[in-house]
Amino acid sequence: MVDSWQECMDYCISVTREAGKVIHEALKHDVSIMLKSSPVDLVTETDQKVEALIISSIKQKFPSHSFIGEESVAAGAPSILTDNPTWIIDPIDGTTNFVHRFPFVAVSIGFAVNKEIEFGIVYSCIEDKMYTARKGKGAFCNGIRIHVSGQEDISNSLVLTEIGYKKDPEHFKTMMTNMQRIVSIPTHGIRSPGSAAVNMCLVAAGAADAYYHIGIHCWDMAGGAIIVTEAGGVIIDISGGPFDLMSRRLITASSRALAERIAKEIQPFPCGRDDEED
Amino acid sequence: MVDSWQECMDYCISVTREAGKVIHEALKHDVSIMLKSSPVDLVTETDQKVEALIISSIKQKFPSHSFIGEESVAAGAPSILTDNPTWIIDPIDGTTNFVHRFPFVAVSIGFAVNKEIEFGIVYSCIEDKMYTARKGKGAFCNGIRIHVSGQEDISNSLVLTEIGYKKDPEHFKTMMTNMQRIVSIPTHGIRSPGSAAVNMCLVAAGAADAYYHIGIHCWDMAGGAIIVTEAGGVIIDISGGPFDLMSRRLITASSRALAERIAKEIQPFPCGRDDEED
Repeated sequence: MVDSWQECMDYCISVTREAGKVIHEALKHDVSIMLKSSPVDLVTETDQKVEALIISSIKQKFPSHSFIGEESVAAGAPSILTDNPTWIIDPIDGTTNFVHRFPFVAVSIGFAVNKEIEFGIVYSCIEDKMYTARKGKGAFCNGIRIHVSGQEDISNSLVLTEIGYKKDPEHFKTMMTNMQRIVSIPTHGIRSPGSAAVNMCLVAAGAADAYYHIGIHCWDMAGGAIIVTEAGGVIIDISGGPFDLMSRRLITASSRALAERIAKEIQPFPCGRDDEED
Repeated sequence: MVDSWQECMDYCISVTREAGKVIHEALKHDVSIMLKSSPVDLVTETDQKVEALIISSIKQKFPSHSFIGEESVAAGAPSILTDNPTWIIDPIDGTTNFVHRFPFVAVSIGFAVNKEIEFGIVYSCIEDKMYTARKGKGAFCNGIRIHVSGQEDISNSLVLTEIGYKKDPEHFKTMMTNMQRIVSIPTHGIRSPGSAAVNMCLVAAGAADAYYHIGIHCWDMAGGAIIVTEAGGVIIDISGGPFDLMSRRLITASSRALAERIAKEIQPFPCGRDDEED
């Protein structure tokens, strides 16, 4: 069984590379932007095209497998994680970055069996960095082993999060207050690169010490989650409890002490679950 | 006279490349970190070494010229801009990024004559991007002409700023309120890459639409200022008035309409001037 997951992972890397080429090509041309519902909620033709390419390619090779993809879910497909081998796909993580050509744009794919992630691939296209990790086998960037910084002290930490508009004024206020509390500990600073998958890989590679986020989706996290843990990092829930892929929230850090310190500092706000019925 | 500035610019590019090599080498090794006064105010041995390398190299070639360098000023040198040809140097813009190996770290050099910037060079070391601009001759990245996005509508804009701890609670509150106001217009988002010089180049290259900051220094802005204007962008003061290199504040944007829109939205807080006597 183990060998077959390795076959899936090898195939995933080659499909991701193909997807990266489509994204690179699109970045050269003017992008026809479609607005979903608001200016902060962008989706491009390329986003849908890349997801269709990935899913059709994998379906052909592994017809019995399941899929959770950002664009498929947006189009009405369910977002329920079962025990069946499941590919969890974000064709373009950092869509807003993609539209603006801001340099953090990633293809993110996580592969789960019995609800546990077996491997993850994140390809940061503009940087040309292929992050890979398989359970128990370590994490790599372009084939070179990566490690978290190991930082335990929040006052020496560089922390990542994202600053997005929330329609609910209370949620928005809590998000801003959380950031204010983290900055004023004080830490070394806050950075917001705009791609959840890349953020997780930056923590995995030791270029940042922690990342927290409320309101993301399973497809933003599935690829990066195993990359950061295989690089020696930890992932927990915002509450300080165990990480839940469908919970739409996470803290990931270079050490348990740091993750728990952030959990103490920030307040949650309701964001629903990915596997919730509408 | 024009030719002699071109000679200065050519020399500047080669010195910047040398400085970049020293930074690259340092990033491979453990960095001996010295803390100045607080965890958010880091300086490394490399920072001082790179500035000394740049200044001694230029002094040898152009002995009559003046210098304003971040590390020299920190060591007590004056920070007064005269009519004399003056090299305004940030040896490592994004020192915190450098310490963490977060991927935006730049050498920034601006060259002013009669208090006006003649050329600017920003080398983003980890990305290996050499941004250059000479007055009236356009802006380039690795030799390829760059242009701002031209965006005029703030609701379609990606905005850059930096989130740093301010000791004065009122200043900190104003900084957070400014960010909150910009995000909730709403815009496409806020990004904080952690290097003022790179931020200006991202606007110049069209990868972001605007950047505002209160509390930066002339050495953070001198190189990037001409790169963004030669790329078709505008720089104004936070008040909406003309940009002042020694004022420690700026708004730069892909269009005047966008810059003025941001000026209307944000409130200043006192940050002193670079040419103020202590």
